[in-house]
Amino acid sequence: MTLPPSNSREQAKELVLNLQDTICDGLESIDGEGVFQEEQWEREEGGGGRSRVMREGRVFEQGGVNFSEVYGEELPPSIVSQRPEAKGHKWFATGTSMVLHPRNPYIPTVHLNYRYFEAGPVWWFGGGADLTPFYPYLEDTRTFHREHKNACDKVSPELHKVFKLWCDEYFYLKHRKETRGVGGIFYDYQDGSGSLYKGQNKEGKAAAKSKELGESKQSWEDLYKLAQNCGNAFLPGYIPIVERRQNQEYGERERNFQLYRRGRYVEFNLVWDRGTIFGLQTNGRTESILMSLPPLARWEYGYKPIKGSREYFLTDIFTKPQDWFDDTDLENKCKENNIFH
Amino acid sequence: MTLPPSNSREQAKELVLNLQDTICDGLESIDGEGVFQEEQWEREEGGGGRSRVMREGRVFEQGGVNFSEVYGEELPPSIVSQRPEAKGHKWFATGTSMVLHPRNPYIPTVHLNYRYFEAGPVWWFGGGADLTPFYPYLEDTRTFHREHKNACDKVSPELHKVFKLWCDEYFYLKHRKETRGVGGIFYDYQDGSGSLYKGQNKEGKAAAKSKELGESKQSWEDLYKLAQNCGNAFLPGYIPIVERRQNQEYGERERNFQLYRRGRYVEFNLVWDRGTIFGLQTNGRTESILMSLPPLARWEYGYKPIKGSREYFLTDIFTKPQDWFDDTDLENKCKENNIFH
Repeated sequence: MTLPPSNSREQAKELVLNLQDTICDGLESIDGEGVFQEEQWEREEGGGGRSRVMREGRVFEQGGVNFSEVYGEELPPSIVSQRPEAKGHKWFATGTSMVLHPRNPYIPTVHLNYRYFEAGPVWWFGGGADLTPFYPYLEDTRTFHREHKNACDKVSPELHKVFKLWCDEYFYLKHRKETRGVGGIFYDYQDGSGSLYKGQNKEGKAAAKSKELGESKQSWEDLYKLAQNCGNAFLPGYIPIVERRQNQEYGERERNFQLYRRGRYVEFNLVWDRGTIFGLQTNGRTESILMSLPPLARWEYGYKPIKGSREYFLTDIFTKPQDWFDDTDLENKCKENNIFH
Repeated sequence: MTLPPSNSREQAKELVLNLQDTICDGLESIDGEGVFQEEQWEREEGGGGRSRVMREGRVFEQGGVNFSEVYGEELPPSIVSQRPEAKGHKWFATGTSMVLHPRNPYIPTVHLNYRYFEAGPVWWFGGGADLTPFYPYLEDTRTFHREHKNACDKVSPELHKVFKLWCDEYFYLKHRKETRGVGGIFYDYQDGSGSLYKGQNKEGKAAAKSKELGESKQSWEDLYKLAQNCGNAFLPGYIPIVERRQNQEYGERERNFQLYRRGRYVEFNLVWDRGTIFGLQTNGRTESILMSLPPLARWEYGYKPIKGSREYFLTDIFTKPQDWFDDTDLENKCKENNIFH
């Protein structure tokens, strides 16, 4: 692990603060009506943040972009078990996270999070972004993935190969046997040394790909650049989707399905998301942590979409790990069913 | 621990099946329009169940009463840690569980669950029922608690003293510093020996009360009777509340608040409920486990009720552990604010 620059915390903080600003500006601009309301808060045990929430916008029914900078005496067991060198050390963490719940069911829900940790002798970057459509189109999925791949590739071409698979594995609802959506990228515990994959699923495809690629070296500055590139890939990866879908008409059927699928989003965040669990474990700010939950969600016992319906293709194609670019069968299936673009 | 009767599993199964029948009949009767749809299912690893769901009834927007009988090779760690003698043994479990989501916000959401486990040399009963009002009245709360207290007292007068406190501690949302509602009773790992409280919170009031009462002995038959009495206490503890509240008019304000508070119900079930986590861990039937989730729920960042409003009194009084019967201040506060009856 290389040494971080002497002002690493300040740099990381500025990075995520800038991301929050840039993203909020871009979102307000595309929304045209909704405005983010900001709230600053302090954390009793150390640190604080600024939460920004948009409600009842033109495009966004609800959306939050959070920034936080927190520190404490000892990291919780869930993190120390992954980073034993951090044990017994004071820690520092800063990050920005975002979830947007658009009103129009043709516009996907989307999440982003970039964060930086230091604890005694160790430091690491983590982050990612993933897209959760209700009525997906392959072209939208590709736009989002393309921008994130390019952002990773600018730092090193091997990164995306692992981070794409890691995302599919992380945003997975075991109890539903579904991915949360079409994925994107996800990475954690990146300190520039060892293998790229540092997650818990040693048997998974991300671990295998990482092993195949061998040891990988990045400097602190490389990983800073990675977070910056990926964070800046969000708007070009998402805004074109909004532009394409925002005027697509929908009715009760689409709205009902959207609310039903938002239930899955709640299930993932409360049952499986380590970020959420970390927040609740470390006495985090509940309102900011649960800002990711949708304004309205629905559950229906035993719901199953009719085979061949547009709702059916969501789970048949888009909540499974896929190669979005080079799979001809997938592309043809999307074309045949009018969900290509 | 006394020995169970030779046909303990059959008896326990019949008990919970009968409870399911009685409760469904009572609920259909008060609803008048809604009918339970039954679905039988089998579990790959052993066992199965019958799920009954009512949707869009007159009183009940959604409700489920589930029965299951399941068995397997080894209990999951979360249970073995509480019952080490069960380690390495095949297990059997049968139970009934219910959650009702009424449409009218003046009628509380309610949950019930009674279950029986065997694993090698050990057996135990568990269960309980708890009430989650949106616009609570002290009289409703008392009706529910009175019936459950009487049901416990018929077996032994010390039981309710512990089980009421245990309920307050179990149905607690740490991240909100709120109980789920006004409580009721909860017990687990009851094998008729040792102290009554066998939960994890050794520092809590239930543990203290249990210690104060000393060792407590019940036969298998006593605990069978306890489950039967408590299960049968549900209808007389809940139906009078429905009757009192079903014609109380409400508007958008009350509906919005109900949906918002249902969000808390989702949070509890997915983040804190061991039953739900057990089900998802043991590859349970997801649709039946998550039958407890509401048909519609809402989240709103930073919501705070206006001081002195009816919404305010929910969290000011009714989501804190309380002595519902003998607290004069509480009674007066409810009378002054027109939430006594």
